[in-house]
Amino acid sequence: MKVAVGRPGTVSGLLLRMGQSLFAAASIAVMVSAFGFSSYTAFCYLIASMGLQALWSFGLACLDFYALWVKRDLLSAVLVSLFVVGDWVTATLSLAAACSSAGVAVLFVRDVNFCRTYPQLECHKYVVSIAFAFITWLLIAISSLVMFWLLASV
Amino acid sequence: MKVAVGRPGTVSGLLLRMGQSLFAAASIAVMVSAFGFSSYTAFCYLIASMGLQALWSFGLACLDFYALWVKRDLLSAVLVSLFVVGDWVTATLSLAAACSSAGVAVLFVRDVNFCRTYPQLECHKYVVSIAFAFITWLLIAISSLVMFWLLASV
Repeated sequence: MKVAVGRPGTVSGLLLRMGQSLFAAASIAVMVSAFGFSSYTAFCYLIASMGLQALWSFGLACLDFYALWVKRDLLSAVLVSLFVVGDWVTATLSLAAACSSAGVAVLFVRDVNFCRTYPQLECHKYVVSIAFAFITWLLIAISSLVMFWLLASV
Repeated sequence: MKVAVGRPGTVSGLLLRMGQSLFAAASIAVMVSAFGFSSYTAFCYLIASMGLQALWSFGLACLDFYALWVKRDLLSAVLVSLFVVGDWVTATLSLAAACSSAGVAVLFVRDVNFCRTYPQLECHKYVVSIAFAFITWLLIAISSLVMFWLLASV
């Protein structure tokens, strides 16, 4: 069974990759602009993980663009295996980063009320950055599933 | 391409499922025995998610045992689809729970030094429970990949 959406070297694949890199970059930008993020390991890890995700997705977006430009098919078994491993590693790291940051944000907002006690903490920016990270993960999860499916049916 | 390890209705599949339910139950037991866990949303979510995981894996372990007992093959497309969806949902929830709790634990141990400031918090139990949750996730991730591969090649 062949899937058509999100394959490497198609317009939908290119759009998925561009979406991933844009949301990852937006997540980093918002987190970096928030005061005091660097005191918390989870938020630093979010930036590192989103940085890796943005680089990986941007690289694959360039490859998709090139494949569309020269009208070449990217579906060799070796390439798809490489994409699958990279996609799964970055997807797992992105989910881990988004969830650990979300855990800390929920703690700050609800459990220990840090956000009210220390108004200089820009909690709303943390939340927006984490939301972008979850959207990035959703997009990379779609790519990963499509790639794994392609590998299994190559 | 067929995979042999971890298929439903085999001894390795049964062992994987039993491992998942045992580690999930151990994670819950250790967390429940730690003082003050209920004040933190992430730790409560860990218990809920590990509870779901333990139930799901125990159910499938019983099914595997039954299939081994009556020597029946469980590889129909409908059953495998059902296993894939359940495995992926519980695996994602388990990773999310383990990571959000790990984010909070790292915050307590390293970033804000809660564990030293409030010695009544049983941080070592939090850490052990989270470690068990990560082992559970590792085992369910193996099952999920095997199931997805089976579905793609059914």
